[in-house]
Amino acid sequence: MGNQLYSPVLQAHLSDVEKALPAYLPQDNKAPQQLLYEIMSYACEAGGKRLRPVLVLEFCRVCGGDTARAMPFACAVEMIHSYSLVHDDLPCMDNSSVRRGRLSAHAAYGEAMAVLAGDALLNRAFEIILDPANRSGIPEEYALRAAYELAGASGAGGMVGGQALDLLYENKPVDLDILEKLQHGKTAALFEAACAVGCHIAGAGAEKLTAAREYGMQLGMSFQIVDDILDATATSEQLGKPAGSDIEHGKATYVSLLGVKAAAELAKERVQKAVKALSVFGNKADALCDLAFALLKRKK
Amino acid sequence: MGNQLYSPVLQAHLSDVEKALPAYLPQDNKAPQQLLYEIMSYACEAGGKRLRPVLVLEFCRVCGGDTARAMPFACAVEMIHSYSLVHDDLPCMDNSSVRRGRLSAHAAYGEAMAVLAGDALLNRAFEIILDPANRSGIPEEYALRAAYELAGASGAGGMVGGQALDLLYENKPVDLDILEKLQHGKTAALFEAACAVGCHIAGAGAEKLTAAREYGMQLGMSFQIVDDILDATATSEQLGKPAGSDIEHGKATYVSLLGVKAAAELAKERVQKAVKALSVFGNKADALCDLAFALLKRKK
Repeated sequence: MGNQLYSPVLQAHLSDVEKALPAYLPQDNKAPQQLLYEIMSYACEAGGKRLRPVLVLEFCRVCGGDTARAMPFACAVEMIHSYSLVHDDLPCMDNSSVRRGRLSAHAAYGEAMAVLAGDALLNRAFEIILDPANRSGIPEEYALRAAYELAGASGAGGMVGGQALDLLYENKPVDLDILEKLQHGKTAALFEAACAVGCHIAGAGAEKLTAAREYGMQLGMSFQIVDDILDATATSEQLGKPAGSDIEHGKATYVSLLGVKAAAELAKERVQKAVKALSVFGNKADALCDLAFALLKRKK
Repeated sequence: MGNQLYSPVLQAHLSDVEKALPAYLPQDNKAPQQLLYEIMSYACEAGGKRLRPVLVLEFCRVCGGDTARAMPFACAVEMIHSYSLVHDDLPCMDNSSVRRGRLSAHAAYGEAMAVLAGDALLNRAFEIILDPANRSGIPEEYALRAAYELAGASGAGGMVGGQALDLLYENKPVDLDILEKLQHGKTAALFEAACAVGCHIAGAGAEKLTAAREYGMQLGMSFQIVDDILDATATSEQLGKPAGSDIEHGKATYVSLLGVKAAAELAKERVQKAVKALSVFGNKADALCDLAFALLKRKK
């Protein structure tokens, strides 16, 4: 999947993340809670595109930073994403027993241990970025800014807030304003934070930081719109219905609100805004520009 | 409850925590996810003794620090404690519909929103201590140390790990070694971290930090033993059975493993060790000394 989306520089980040991530997870075969560690690893394996950590590393590189120093932060972002998937899949939430083509964490290990593994991944994310051993060479203020950025994006005003809106508006009328707030929280907030975290570690100034946040936000929003279009297209093809003809599973989507055509137009506009924001980085940001267009055209 | 346990200096901390805590929780009546914020507040209300934040503030004071600066950290510790209670009460965990004399979060607001409110409280804890607005006057390295201490104590090697052991060893043979590891994780790790966090904010040196951790650990372990004794005594009085005659709810306790008398002896030993560790602080630590004995003698 990475091969189709990523130019060589991003592909190299993906490869580095895959190598680094397991080492940041707790590993102790003799610990009595070893099963908890196993579930944490399980939830982070088979991670798909690893978009968020790749964004951390690439923004760090583009801002002239050392990507090796950004790696704990990149892996922390991926752990936060993974914890959110574990909790989202729970029976009381989206009740999904499949994730990335295999059993979801609670389907494989039981609900209680899945709740705990999610909690543990969130804690672990903060633990690794605050660990002095992983902050070597990073000015303290940069580390603090990056950690604060992540905490804000993950919490009640960001990702958890978006998931709460998703639940609270199920089977209720949703307008575009609410849908945008919901998807900003669920998806775009962490994209935005990932881009900003890379800049923080590189010590980038306000102009670059603002541009990175704008890129991440627009990329995250367009990512979600494309998701909705792909879901609706697949569903309508399967069921022989015209796309956009209903609200899937009692949840509003960009397609249910706007139809496929207008949703696709909105995704394209957002990608154009994302790319425009990259101008402050000059041609160093070519890979990020290519990524935005590749995500728009992706087929799954 | 606080009045019986706390000397005036600790009582003042308790009062300060009660005043400060609501302001650190997200509040926005117009936010569409306002219900999430409401549940976060609900979970932090009626908080009982507030032992952990009181420990943060008192160790800060005893080490010569400014307790006002330690307040966000104190409130963060309480949020982490509250999140853990919300998740522990879930139907898939301890399945408890009552907490502190009223409905538990999931009983009041539903399971899905309770999971999210717990997640949001954990995130919020890190958000408030990393927020530059709340770190004014605290050297960056001190704030980082305190945040790292908390992340470690809360996660897979601490509180979440202890809860995992609690689940993994349900209805299985448990020896004292496992029970100690379990209770260290579930209870003592966060007590220990609370004491250390207060020292970090005050910029205390290694000797004081080690002493504070020892006090917190011993206090937390004895706290749990006393809990087990109080539970067993209440249960056996209700059922007319001799205390220590069975394993309650399929879970081993200090009483089920040792009997009431030896368990009480162990709690007393641990309190003595806790008090001994305070010697490096001289008579500044009198309130902490009194607290340890008061917790040992508590009736609920």
